[in-house]
Amino acid sequence: MTYAIGLSDVRQAAERIAGWAHRTPVFTCATLNRRAGKSLFFKCEQWQKVGAFKFRGACNAVRKLPPEQAARGVITHSSGNHAQALALAARMRGIAAHVVMPRTAPQVKRKAVEEYGARVVACEPTLAAREATTAQLQAETGAILIPPYNHPDVMAGQGTIALELLEQAPLVEAIIAPIGGGGLIAGVCVAAKGLNPRLRIFAAEPAGADDAARSKTAGKLLPQTNPQTIADGLLTSLGELTWPVVRDQVERVLTVSDEEIIDALRWMWERAKLLIEPSAAVAVAAALSSSFQALTDIQHVGIVLSGGNVDLERLPW
Amino acid sequence: MTYAIGLSDVRQAAERIAGWAHRTPVFTCATLNRRAGKSLFFKCEQWQKVGAFKFRGACNAVRKLPPEQAARGVITHSSGNHAQALALAARMRGIAAHVVMPRTAPQVKRKAVEEYGARVVACEPTLAAREATTAQLQAETGAILIPPYNHPDVMAGQGTIALELLEQAPLVEAIIAPIGGGGLIAGVCVAAKGLNPRLRIFAAEPAGADDAARSKTAGKLLPQTNPQTIADGLLTSLGELTWPVVRDQVERVLTVSDEEIIDALRWMWERAKLLIEPSAAVAVAAALSSSFQALTDIQHVGIVLSGGNVDLERLPW
Repeated sequence: MTYAIGLSDVRQAAERIAGWAHRTPVFTCATLNRRAGKSLFFKCEQWQKVGAFKFRGACNAVRKLPPEQAARGVITHSSGNHAQALALAARMRGIAAHVVMPRTAPQVKRKAVEEYGARVVACEPTLAAREATTAQLQAETGAILIPPYNHPDVMAGQGTIALELLEQAPLVEAIIAPIGGGGLIAGVCVAAKGLNPRLRIFAAEPAGADDAARSKTAGKLLPQTNPQTIADGLLTSLGELTWPVVRDQVERVLTVSDEEIIDALRWMWERAKLLIEPSAAVAVAAALSSSFQALTDIQHVGIVLSGGNVDLERLPW
Repeated sequence: MTYAIGLSDVRQAAERIAGWAHRTPVFTCATLNRRAGKSLFFKCEQWQKVGAFKFRGACNAVRKLPPEQAARGVITHSSGNHAQALALAARMRGIAAHVVMPRTAPQVKRKAVEEYGARVVACEPTLAAREATTAQLQAETGAILIPPYNHPDVMAGQGTIALELLEQAPLVEAIIAPIGGGGLIAGVCVAAKGLNPRLRIFAAEPAGADDAARSKTAGKLLPQTNPQTIADGLLTSLGELTWPVVRDQVERVLTVSDEEIIDALRWMWERAKLLIEPSAAVAVAAALSSSFQALTDIQHVGIVLSGGNVDLERLPW
């Protein structure tokens, strides 16, 4: 079985983004270790550029473009961290970025993307409008589409997290990462299992957006419908490129309730003093869940803290 | 002029607390640097044990006690970070700790101290009741009093922050630290100026609790009266042992409004993703103030982030 990317793609991505993306630190917290009954190694992507791991994938994709393509600029549709990531990666390369965003997106998100120098184009908040607007802009500008997760270069960029984590915390026997579209977990799988096939990879998913868990159970890609969770970075469906990796290389999808996510978020803020976003807390909640704690043969766990972009006006407690 | 402590006391404190206290990391943030117009090096004591620098002083004081004194236990009156710090330092040495706390203190603070194994004794919320209760407990138990700042061993312990900071960020030309009772800033002065007399030390103080600024102007120790600020760790008056160091070695007290403190707090949370408490944000606010920015001969600034114990139910925005 071949996948969209292999370990060598991740290694090339690491070379490509070196000096542009941060090598984020790994933190530990004795209080959390006691609660989890395991040693947790937090890979702190909240301190990545734009405050989220998404910068790695966007940066890899943008820097990999041959000059003649890069000159045409890049385009995406997103109102989340990928939009900011692509905007900054494009600005760093000195090329244009266009971001299609539903006109209902919070003003603060639009402003953040514009501050990174991208052009924001508003569309109606429907899938059809988003695709039509994107297609029209692509036709007009010739810009290259860089989607948020279902793209080999994006997946390879996210996988660089695992290369760093395994250097920084070599004792790690398992890695937990949140799953939304699957770009992060797929990159982590390919990198980690490429380095050491015995590493065990777990995906952490909100119960209210559990397409990955249902897809794993069904053995086929099922779309996300009507997601309801505070982990607003994990609302999307898996992609055609990320799903095969998840299907074959993720040992289990651990689903957690919004209550567990909020509890984990508070522990991370109050005890570890790590300011992470709810989507990142999903992986922490999974590590604290009784079903993961029951895996007593796992003692050292890497946890990807995916980002730290929180709306301080709307905290979930 | 001799002070309560010298550089050698701080060096001995550093040896004494090594392995018990954390050597905290130094962080930088490009966004904050741009706003400040200088390079800021954040010494991250929010990740110190108990979430605040106070553990250094308490740990030094407790570990320095000769065995026959230590056996009698330790006592303090505090409802803040020093109470937790002393409780943990005592537990680590296997001795008793007694904490006198006004009965009006938040339940969560009482509980935190008790979780570290200390005995909490409630008293009426008056200075007279606090002193009477403490004296009575001392008489009953023979416990050694470790006050929160006005004590040589506590001051020396806090000074270890500067030893580490100057190793971690050797370019630093100036250090800003918050000032309340003055234990932190006095320790930092003695350590930093002992190593390099040309280092410039600034104290950061809330305008609503500006006894240090008024004392500096008057040239004599003036007490704090009726303090009003969200920086609830900085309400106390300077002490007799800390004041002479502040008087002679602090270049200037930079006062900042609560509005500036909240603004700095939000920048640190939202941009730097560093979860600090309002009292720590006072030093950041001072670094961002126009009067400090006007000092164009200072380019590299160490900033002591004093702690990260925040009440998430009562955020100031």
